[in-house]
Amino acid sequence: MIKIRVPGTSGNLGPGFDTVGMAFQLYNYLTFDILSSGLQIEISGEGEDELSRVEDNIVYQAALQVFNRVNFQPQGLKIIQDNSIPMSRGLGSSASSIVGGMVGANLISGGHLTKEEILKMAVDMEGHPDNVTPALMGGVTASVKGVQEVDYIKILPPGELHAIVAIPDFHLSTNVARQVIPARVDRGDAVFNIGRTSVMIGALMEGNLPLFGKMMEDRLHQPYRMSLIPGIKKVFSGAKEAGALSVAISGAGPTIIAFVVDHEEKVALAMQDAFLSEGIPCRTLDLYPDAEGTVLIRD
Amino acid sequence: MIKIRVPGTSGNLGPGFDTVGMAFQLYNYLTFDILSSGLQIEISGEGEDELSRVEDNIVYQAALQVFNRVNFQPQGLKIIQDNSIPMSRGLGSSASSIVGGMVGANLISGGHLTKEEILKMAVDMEGHPDNVTPALMGGVTASVKGVQEVDYIKILPPGELHAIVAIPDFHLSTNVARQVIPARVDRGDAVFNIGRTSVMIGALMEGNLPLFGKMMEDRLHQPYRMSLIPGIKKVFSGAKEAGALSVAISGAGPTIIAFVVDHEEKVALAMQDAFLSEGIPCRTLDLYPDAEGTVLIRD
Repeated sequence: MIKIRVPGTSGNLGPGFDTVGMAFQLYNYLTFDILSSGLQIEISGEGEDELSRVEDNIVYQAALQVFNRVNFQPQGLKIIQDNSIPMSRGLGSSASSIVGGMVGANLISGGHLTKEEILKMAVDMEGHPDNVTPALMGGVTASVKGVQEVDYIKILPPGELHAIVAIPDFHLSTNVARQVIPARVDRGDAVFNIGRTSVMIGALMEGNLPLFGKMMEDRLHQPYRMSLIPGIKKVFSGAKEAGALSVAISGAGPTIIAFVVDHEEKVALAMQDAFLSEGIPCRTLDLYPDAEGTVLIRD
Repeated sequence: MIKIRVPGTSGNLGPGFDTVGMAFQLYNYLTFDILSSGLQIEISGEGEDELSRVEDNIVYQAALQVFNRVNFQPQGLKIIQDNSIPMSRGLGSSASSIVGGMVGANLISGGHLTKEEILKMAVDMEGHPDNVTPALMGGVTASVKGVQEVDYIKILPPGELHAIVAIPDFHLSTNVARQVIPARVDRGDAVFNIGRTSVMIGALMEGNLPLFGKMMEDRLHQPYRMSLIPGIKKVFSGAKEAGALSVAISGAGPTIIAFVVDHEEKVALAMQDAFLSEGIPCRTLDLYPDAEGTVLIRD
C-alpha cells in the first residue's frame, strides 16, 4: 500500500499566464493498493458526490498512463481519495488528481520513472504546466512545456508570505474560462505581462514582497474573465484596501487569491463581504505555501 | 568638471522583448564642464563622423531635460564624448547617450535627482526600459515602465558568463526593425515568451547557465527581424555548433549576441565566417557583463 499527499495550487499567477503557479498547504491524500482483481475507488471530502468511482476517474486514468508506460499490469487496484482541494474553483484539483495518480502509480509499480518524467507526462495530460509543476515539485514555480521535457524553476517564498483565497459558491469550468480569452493579443499587452512576470519572479527570489505584489497585474486573461465572476472588482478593491499585497484570479477562477503578510482576517472579511454584496456566499482559507510538492506519507 | 562612464547594453534579451537587458564592459566616456557661454561638443571614437555637435546632439538633449527639471541654467556647456559603443547596431548606444547625458547633467548641477528619478526620465525619453535600466544600473535587468516609476530587478550573472557579439558592417535603424513586428500576436506566442523569460530570469539568479541558455528562444520579434539580417540563420547555427550556450539578436539588431562560458574563439570565428559567406564583413567582441552601470570617473 502506498499513501501520498498532493498539494492544491494556484495557477496563472498574476501576469504568469499558463506559466507561474504556487503550491499550498491544502492537500488531497491518495492511497493506492494492489487487489487480486477489479477496480475499487473510494472518495471522501471534496468531490465525493460528483467524482466518478469507475474507469473514467481521473486519478485512475492518470495512473493507467504510468502503468502502460512502465508495462505494469496490476490484477486489481484500489484507490482511496481523501480530498480537501475544492473542485473546479481554480485551486488545481485537476492537476492534483493527475499528479497524484501518476506519482502513486509510479511508486506502487516499483518507482521506475523519475520526477522529471512524471512532470512531462502530467503536463501533457493537463495541457499546461502552471498547476502541475508546483503540485509535483512544491513552492512557486515558473515552467515551460517543451517537446522533450518541462523546464522549470522553483522558488521557496519568504516565510511571512501567505494567501487568503476566497472561494465563491459556484463552479467555473476551465473550458468556459478559456473560451472568453482571445486567440490574438496586442503586442503591448504581451510585453506588459512579460515585463511583470520577469520582475515578479526576480522580486520573489530576492524576497522583495512589496515589488512581488506590485507586479501582479495582468492583461492576458483577467480582463476577459472579470465578467464570469460577479462582484470581482469589489473583491479586488476590498482585499487591497484591507491590506493585501496583491490580488489575482486563482487559475481560471472563480477563486480569488489575495497575498498577505499581515491583516489576514481583515482581508478575508473584506473579500467575503464583497462576494456577499452580490448575493454570493463564499468561504475563505488562509493558506501558506507548500514547499515539498507531492510526497510519500508513512503512517 | 565631471567625467562619467556609461556601458553598452544588449536589449530584448532572448524572450525578454522590451524587458530584459544586459550591460557590458564596453563604454562611452562623457565629460561635462561648465563654460561662461555657448555649447561645445567634442566627439571621438564611434560616431565621430556622424553625430551632431550642435543643439540636437542626443547627449545634450538628455542633459537639457535634467537642467529644466532641476531649474539649473548653465551659462555655457562643454561635452566631450569618447565613444566605444558602435551606433545603430543593437548595442544600446542611444540608451547610453540618454543615460549619460542625464547622469552627467545631474552631477554637474548638484546631484538633486535620485538614480530612480533619472531612470524614469531616461526610459520616458528612450520609450522602452530594456537598454536604459542596465545602462544606468549595470548587470542584467528586467524592468517595467510604469506611470509613476520604473520597476526593475538587477541580477549579477555568474562570473564565467560572457558573450561574443558579432557586429556586421551595416546599420539597422530601430524604427525599421520595429515596423516589421506585428501589432497583434498569437496568445500562444505571448505565453511562449512569458514562460521562457520567467524561467530565464530564475535560472540566471540561480546560476544555472545551461537552463538560462536554453530559455533564450523568442517568438515576438526575432522571427520577423530575421529577414533584415542576411545570413542570420547561419550565424545562429554556427555559434551554437561552435559551443555557444545560446544566440539571440542584440536589441533590434543587426548585432548577434552569443552567450558563452568557453569556446569563445571558435564561436567568434564561426559567426564571422557565417556573415562573410553572405559577403558581410563583421567584427566580433568578447564582452563581459558590467556590474556597476553608469559611474563617476575620478582621474
